[in-house]
This record gives sequence, C-alpha cells and structure tokens, in this order.
Amino acid sequence: MRIDVLTLFPEMFDGVFGSSILGKARDKGIVSLNTVNFRDFSNNKHNTVDDMPYGGGGGMVLKAEPIFGAVEHVVKIGSDATDTEEGGTKRKPRVILMCPQGRKFSQEIARELSAEEHLIFVCGHYEGYDERIREFLVTDELSVGDYVLTGGELPAMVVVDAVVRLLPGTLGNEQSAATDSFSDGLLEYPHYTRPAEFRGWKVPDALLSGHHAEIGKWRRQQSLERTLERRPELLELAELTAKEREWLAKARIERENRAENRK
Amino acid sequence: MRIDVLTLFPEMFDGVFGSSILGKARDKGIVSLNTVNFRDFSNNKHNTVDDMPYGGGGGMVLKAEPIFGAVEHVVKIGSDATDTEEGGTKRKPRVILMCPQGRKFSQEIARELSAEEHLIFVCGHYEGYDERIREFLVTDELSVGDYVLTGGELPAMVVVDAVVRLLPGTLGNEQSAATDSFSDGLLEYPHYTRPAEFRGWKVPDALLSGHHAEIGKWRRQQSLERTLERRPELLELAELTAKEREWLAKARIERENRAENRK
Repeated sequence: MRIDVLTLFPEMFDGVFGSSILGKARDKGIVSLNTVNFRDFSNNKHNTVDDMPYGGGGGMVLKAEPIFGAVEHVVKIGSDATDTEEGGTKRKPRVILMCPQGRKFSQEIARELSAEEHLIFVCGHYEGYDERIREFLVTDELSVGDYVLTGGELPAMVVVDAVVRLLPGTLGNEQSAATDSFSDGLLEYPHYTRPAEFRGWKVPDALLSGHHAEIGKWRRQQSLERTLERRPELLELAELTAKEREWLAKARIERENRAENRK
Repeated sequence: MRIDVLTLFPEMFDGVFGSSILGKARDKGIVSLNTVNFRDFSNNKHNTVDDMPYGGGGGMVLKAEPIFGAVEHVVKIGSDATDTEEGGTKRKPRVILMCPQGRKFSQEIARELSAEEHLIFVCGHYEGYDERIREFLVTDELSVGDYVLTGGELPAMVVVDAVVRLLPGTLGNEQSAATDSFSDGLLEYPHYTRPAEFRGWKVPDALLSGHHAEIGKWRRQQSLERTLERRPELLELAELTAKEREWLAKARIERENRAENRK
C-alpha cells in the first residue's frame, strides 16, 4: 500500500511514521509512507496556500490550486509505480479529507481502507477548505471524534495507524492475539503480572491457583462485570449463556437498587 | 500547565510537540510538554517493563513498578515546581490512562482538563496493564474513539492538542474565531477563495455579490442544508427561526420522497 499525506507540517510525522509498528511496516516494505508539503505546489511567488474568503468573515481558506496540484502529483507517482510493478488494472486512489464534518471513523472504515492500494490524506490546519476541493477532488471526509483539534495531522496519523496495523504481515502473532480478545463482544478482563504482591496489593487468588477452569471462570465473570459497568450497550450483542443472562438480570436489579438508595 | 507523557516511544512525540500550535504554546511558556520513558524506572537488570500474565494466555502485561515509579517521579517534579512558583495549595495531578475501555473523549472533557495544573498520560503499547495501575494510580481512563490503535501515544497527542489549544494565550484571535463558528449548533457553510473560476468551476454568485444580507442568507441556508444532509441530529438542538423550521419540514419530506422513489 502507498500512503501520501499532504500537510504544511511534514515534520510532525517523522517520529510517528518512523517508530514502532508503522516504522516496522515501512521497513518490511508493507507500506510506503510519504509526506508532501503542498506549499511546494503553490503557483504564486510568495508561496501562499491560503487566502481571504469570498463574502468576507474571519479565518483563511486553503486555495484549490496547491491541493489539486499536490494530489495530482502523488496520484501520478502511485500510478507509475503500479504500472511498473503490476501492469494490470488499478484502483483509483482514495483522497481523504480529515475534517470535523466528516463521517465518524470506525474500525469498519479502517478495514475498508486497508483493502485499498493508495490512500492520500489532505490535512488542513485551522483554515477552511475551498469548497471545490471537497466537491471535485476528495473521495472521503473523515472525523476521528467530536472534539476540536488544531489540524488534520493527528487525525490522519490515527487513521494511518489503524489501517496499517490491519495489513497482512504488519503485526506479529502475539499482537494480533491481543486484538482478538475483543471478539466475544465483551470488554477485556483485568490483567496481572509479577510481583504477586506489590505494596500490599495482591493478585486475586483465582489467577494464582493454576486451575484452568477456575481462571477461565474468574476472567469471564470479570469481563461481564466490567462491561456492565462501563459499556452496558455492548451486552445486547454479546454471546451469553443462559446462566450468564440470569446473573446479568440480577446484577442489573442490584445496580438499580443501589442507585435508588443513593437518592 | 505541566504535561508529562509516559511512553516507551518518546521519539514519537518530538515532531508533534515541537510544531505548530503546541510548539508555540511551549515556546510562550503556556505549557511544559515532557516525555518520560518509563523503561528508565524498571528495577530489574534487563530493564524489562512487561511480563507474562498470571493465569496464562497470550500477550504481555505492563508491570506496576515502572509505571508507579515514573508517575511518582513526575508528580514530585510538578509539585516542587509549584511550591517554588506559588507556595500555596495545589491540585492533585490527573493521571490519565489512554485505553479502548475508557470514557469517550469529548470537547467537554477537553474543557474540564484545561482547568488542571498537571496532566500525566500513561501510554501502553499493545500490552495490557497490570490492574493495580488502573486501581490505585490512575484517575481517568480515556478513549478517543471506537477503533483499534497500536498504542496510547496517538490518543495522548490528540488529547494534549485538544486541551492545550483551550489554554488562554495559545490561539490567536483569528484561529479562535474559526472555532466559534460552530457555536450556533450547525455545520459550517462552504468556503471559497480566489480564483473566482478554477478549471471551469465557479464561486457561487451570491458570494461575489458584495451584498452582505444576501451573503449571510446564502451561508445560513448552506449550513442548514449541510447539517440536514450530514448530521441531522444536530438540528434538534440548533436555534432556528420559524421560517427555517418551515423550510426544514418541507426539505425533510422531499428527502423522504426521493428516498421512496429510489426503492
């Protein structure tokens, strides 16, 4: 996969694209991670990339020209590379605008994007975008959450990380297993490691018992309790035994009673 | 404000903490941004920070000792600094664990955190955490969204960015104004800047008219349409005139009819 990020702050990406899982995926040749400063594609002598909005008002607006120029540049590089390597038909790149008005990013979208060959991220920075970028260039608008950030750079890193870790070969088996533990639809049970006693706080006896069935039972019960406490809506979709449903019904009534008593 | 980030990958933060708004806030002395490698606080000769889980199973678990040691170290530095500077009473630091099970991060939590004096972020990296860290050290658990990331580093950067930009003096007036445009509860209208025609695509006439009332009317209408299209739930809370509500009711019926015809 090829990923290009268009930004006025390419230096923000150095540490993130070079470290940990992303750095390793890059070294293994699983993904090519590139940043492009779209200021290099401004066609005026002062290299400006933004300008006053038509109709007045505060704030600056990113001009269409440098963004179109930079996107077309990386589309061509990606296309030439595919020509040489595969020679066959190719998919169009996805051009992704990170913005608060976009579709909410999710694990499902991460999976969808991980099947693409070329992703191009456009990161603005507190300015608005000329609407023609949205209308005639961009294929996707994504938001990582309902909070206000300074620019699209951190959201782009978040999406890149979520996507690249899904590419075949990126994660070792151990790390993949860690992710799979969510697959039963419940939150994870608590983990403990050595020492068995730390500052007087002990590891639960069940985990030290060496008795597999008992450990499994304790963990399942902890997952259930934690999910009820923190994300009760997940329980609707979780696969539960009849006995677990019975316990859950009782636990809910107890919670309601406690809440009632507090009033 | 003082911010410390505990991580095994401090180099990931260099570019982000040094650039743009965060870099400026740091230069102005509004915030002190620090990274701490908690491997330096492991008390064994191989400097290991994780170990096998009690009770078996895949994945590694971050040990309690290095995290407690690193947090206590930065709490002391923060406390000594406050002693010298202010000498008075001080607030306890918030110790924030970035994890998928945490409370969903929002603009409201960003505002809450921006009133603190000292934030400490604990970033794990595909391992689990020894539960004693959660139970006896951490004050908050936060998640930035429902997607799987490699570690807590990118989420911590997201929270730091959202919080620091709210600190007095961080943003210039122009940038603050850009944020305020969300305050009427609708999505932003489209922006355009020069050229008035780009590759045959023209800026809407209303914006070129120079007629303030007409521009205002066009923008408001665009905000309404866009909000209806992308985030209809926001309209419930938006402040609308009687005329706008009437238009909205009609537009909704039209949308439904169009959807019906497509079937």
